[in-house]
Amino acid sequence: MSKKATIYDIAKELKITAATVSRALNNNPKISEKTRELVQATATKLNYKQNKLALALKSGKSKNIGVVVPYINRIFFSSVIRGIEDELYPKGYHVIIAQTHDNKEKELKILQNLLNEQVDGILISSSYSNNEKHKLDYLVKKNTPFIFFDRKLNFPNISSVTLNDYQGGYDATKHLIEQGCMRIAHFLVDQELELYKNRFKGYKDALEKSGLPFLPEYVVTLKSDIEAGREAAKTIMKLPLPPDAIFSSTDYGLLGAVQYLNELSVKIPDDFCVVGFSNAPFTQFLETSISSVDQSPVEMGKTAAKVFLEQIENEQTVKICKNVVLPAKLIVRKSSGKIN
Amino acid sequence: MSKKATIYDIAKELKITAATVSRALNNNPKISEKTRELVQATATKLNYKQNKLALALKSGKSKNIGVVVPYINRIFFSSVIRGIEDELYPKGYHVIIAQTHDNKEKELKILQNLLNEQVDGILISSSYSNNEKHKLDYLVKKNTPFIFFDRKLNFPNISSVTLNDYQGGYDATKHLIEQGCMRIAHFLVDQELELYKNRFKGYKDALEKSGLPFLPEYVVTLKSDIEAGREAAKTIMKLPLPPDAIFSSTDYGLLGAVQYLNELSVKIPDDFCVVGFSNAPFTQFLETSISSVDQSPVEMGKTAAKVFLEQIENEQTVKICKNVVLPAKLIVRKSSGKIN
Repeated sequence: MSKKATIYDIAKELKITAATVSRALNNNPKISEKTRELVQATATKLNYKQNKLALALKSGKSKNIGVVVPYINRIFFSSVIRGIEDELYPKGYHVIIAQTHDNKEKELKILQNLLNEQVDGILISSSYSNNEKHKLDYLVKKNTPFIFFDRKLNFPNISSVTLNDYQGGYDATKHLIEQGCMRIAHFLVDQELELYKNRFKGYKDALEKSGLPFLPEYVVTLKSDIEAGREAAKTIMKLPLPPDAIFSSTDYGLLGAVQYLNELSVKIPDDFCVVGFSNAPFTQFLETSISSVDQSPVEMGKTAAKVFLEQIENEQTVKICKNVVLPAKLIVRKSSGKIN
Repeated sequence: MSKKATIYDIAKELKITAATVSRALNNNPKISEKTRELVQATATKLNYKQNKLALALKSGKSKNIGVVVPYINRIFFSSVIRGIEDELYPKGYHVIIAQTHDNKEKELKILQNLLNEQVDGILISSSYSNNEKHKLDYLVKKNTPFIFFDRKLNFPNISSVTLNDYQGGYDATKHLIEQGCMRIAHFLVDQELELYKNRFKGYKDALEKSGLPFLPEYVVTLKSDIEAGREAAKTIMKLPLPPDAIFSSTDYGLLGAVQYLNELSVKIPDDFCVVGFSNAPFTQFLETSISSVDQSPVEMGKTAAKVFLEQIENEQTVKICKNVVLPAKLIVRKSSGKIN
């Protein structure tokens, strides 16, 4: 590889000052279009690559924020990101997104890389559970602020924005009981993750408070997809006393179950009620629209961004740590609308 | 703001060498856990921020790739990204994602920022049309490779991976004609974008080849969402001679139209056939599943990544420019399945 060209090489070639070259490369409006093009052409010719360093050193800030999510294509996460961008973009921040595919090793590498890139903050929905959170210890201890959203890890002095998942699970189950359902099954996604545990706890407590028995065979742990939901429905419908309702922590899993119930000609909501979680868009446009718990993802993103801004603006005085819990909103649709 | 701490300050404080500090901060396995923690704690105390520069200078590569798309939550784009990641992640690259929300000004800023961040390449589906592409001139002329996918801009010597949108439009329309449809409407999204123009051209050519007239009143330009599709359907169904089929460049728009047709009790596919474009997941799980043209997004992402790798590996010898066109695949479902 040839020796790296510097702005001085470009200046020498064009017989202008290095300062002018620098301004031209940074698209400073004081520089004429002609000069900028000339500088750019020479930079290309000399194989010059502009260096981030100068910019970052000047301000001490990169104005880049890293957002790390399990999957960008889950409507929940993309909506959170939308909220984050809506809040940070007008303040001159760039939002850099990375997805972990729920791969913990990948998450570590992504975080390390973002910190190396000197982002000003990291907003993350982690794939780690609180049992293994020590693996992130050395990262959150660095000077870059971390804000957890939705999938939170309990580190001291680290901010977070989460949903009241317990209340969401409780409200959904209570609503099914009010519809007259007596044998409510639950689709659980991941016992390790706090948020699913909390929804499950809400479900159990709502049963208990209404005097309904909790039956372990009515709880199925499954992946959050249609096929898994179909299989889970098969399992519970084969029980000697099948359930008459499902509260599912996953809308996609529930969709698979609904497809299977349709094949069995089980009538929804007359003979069987269902409520999902996360209010995925398809829930409203199915012929039998599906009740679901809304997670206010845009609101969650905006809040996480605001918490970050507060933190960064107060960096030199006090370290602000905030743990915001947003309310869950049950949206009742046809799939659980016996009483109307 | 206090003076920036350097690794020398940390070394001095701990009475170890700067090289050891550097290795510890870069998580070099040769350094003991104890030393790493000590260095990290001191770095935190002194408010030291690690600098990307050292790493980038060493290799001349950041191993970061920027991927820029209009919307991360469109299944098409998230699937392309999945393909890119599947190909690049095993090669040690980090994929940094940014979304433009189809905002051109934002796209420019994002690109400028990614280039400042010294990414090794940019894979982009642009929101610019070929009429305005000169605004990106100075960016693509820099030394960082650009690869366009799906929404391509025609720059000389710049690689691209696109779908054969013309063939997709042609096949979809021909299929509707084969089902006996005589008055086929078209939902067009954006006349400015090459890909929509090509689908439209395929539609027109298929009509012409079959001897069917092209009627401008059967072509509606609309946004790619449900509400707009509903409105578009209202418009064409009010015509003195309403159409008997729709080929839509947008699945979401088509969904709105199908909802409206259902309200009018128009029977699909008996009295009206529809074919969409992009094979959105919901098309298959509606009760009347919707025929659609698949864009092989994962394949597109993998191909774009491979083109990038070829380019970067050959940087020092020849500049490789490749323009790959992937075939469009019509998937026939109930919504256009009269003959079966």
